[in-house]
Amino acid sequence: MGRWEPDGRGRLERAALALYGERGFENTTVAEIAARAGLTERTFFRYFADKREVLFWGAGALRELLVSAVASAPESAAPMDVVVAAFETAAAVLQERRESALQRQVVISANAELRERELIKLALLGAALADALRRRGVPDTAASLTADTGIAIFRAAFEAWVHETEQRAFPQLIRDSFDELKAVTSGASS
Amino acid sequence: MGRWEPDGRGRLERAALALYGERGFENTTVAEIAARAGLTERTFFRYFADKREVLFWGAGALRELLVSAVASAPESAAPMDVVVAAFETAAAVLQERRESALQRQVVISANAELRERELIKLALLGAALADALRRRGVPDTAASLTADTGIAIFRAAFEAWVHETEQRAFPQLIRDSFDELKAVTSGASS
Repeated sequence: MGRWEPDGRGRLERAALALYGERGFENTTVAEIAARAGLTERTFFRYFADKREVLFWGAGALRELLVSAVASAPESAAPMDVVVAAFETAAAVLQERRESALQRQVVISANAELRERELIKLALLGAALADALRRRGVPDTAASLTADTGIAIFRAAFEAWVHETEQRAFPQLIRDSFDELKAVTSGASS
Repeated sequence: MGRWEPDGRGRLERAALALYGERGFENTTVAEIAARAGLTERTFFRYFADKREVLFWGAGALRELLVSAVASAPESAAPMDVVVAAFETAAAVLQERRESALQRQVVISANAELRERELIKLALLGAALADALRRRGVPDTAASLTADTGIAIFRAAFEAWVHETEQRAFPQLIRDSFDELKAVTSGASS
C-alpha cells in the first residue's frame, strides 16, 4: 500500500462513523476502522491521534471559520448579527455534510463521555467567539452574552436540523432559531 | 472523636477550599483536608466521594432549587421571566456564601479538568431547566433556547459578581445581565 492515499482522512472517517453506528464507539478498534477503509493502522494515526479524534477533528475548523467570519464582518454590524451570520456560514458548510453530521450525532448521543466532550467543544467555541468579539471592541460582558447566545441559537437550530422533516436547510434554521430567541426574550414581561 | 461532628460538611469544605487555594487542588490530599478540619478521613468520606466532590456537591442543590422555582412559578408567567426569577432566587442563596463561592472559583479557574467539570455542570443545569419548562408546556425549541439563555445570563452575571467592585449583589447582577441580553438581541439590525 502506497504512502499516499487519496482522501485517506475521508475514507477513515466514513469507515469509523459506519462502525461506531453498527457496533458502538466503545466496541470499535482502530484496527477495524483501518481495515474497513482499506488502509493501515499506521495511516490512521497519520490523520488522527485516536478513535475519538475522528469525531472531533472538525471542531478546530469550525472554530476558525466562525472566528474569521466574526473578524471580517463589517465594522458597523451589531455584534449579535455578526455572530448569527457567522453561524449561518458554518451551517451552510455543515449542510453539505448532513449525512455524516447526523451519523456523528447518533454516535455522540449514545455515549456519556462523548456527550461531555461535545459540551466542552461548544463551550470552547463560545469562548473563542467572545474573544473575537472583544477584538472588535465589544465590551466584556456583552461579548460573553452575545457569544453564549449564539451558541444557544446554534444548539437549538442543530437539534431542529437533526429532527428536520420539513427539509429546511441548516442556515435557515439558524435564522429561525434566532427569531425564536428574540421572541422568547422580548416576550418576557419585565 | 465522636461519630457526630457538628457541621462536619462545612468544616471539611472550608478546610478543603483553604488548602486548594494554598497549595493547589492537585497537591492536596484527603488526609490533609481531614487533618485541617480536625476530623478523620473516614468522616470526610461520609460526606464526599472524593476531593473533587467538595467543589461540586452544591450543583445538585442548585439544580433542585432552580427546577422547583420554575415548577412553582405562576402559570401565566412568560418562560424567560420564570427562568430569570429562578436564577435570582439561586443568586440570593449564593450571595450568602460569597466568600466560599469566590474561593471555589479561583480553584476551578486554575485547573483544566475542573473547568471542564464546571462547564458540564452548567450544561446539565441548562438541560434540567429546559425539562422543567417543557413540563410547564413550553414547546421544545423554546424551552431549550430559554434555558440556555438563562445559563448565558447566569454565567455573565457570575463573572461580573466575581469581579464586582461596585458591591452590586448577585441577584441584581442577574437582572442587569438579563437587561443587557435584551439590549444585545433586540439591538441587532435584522
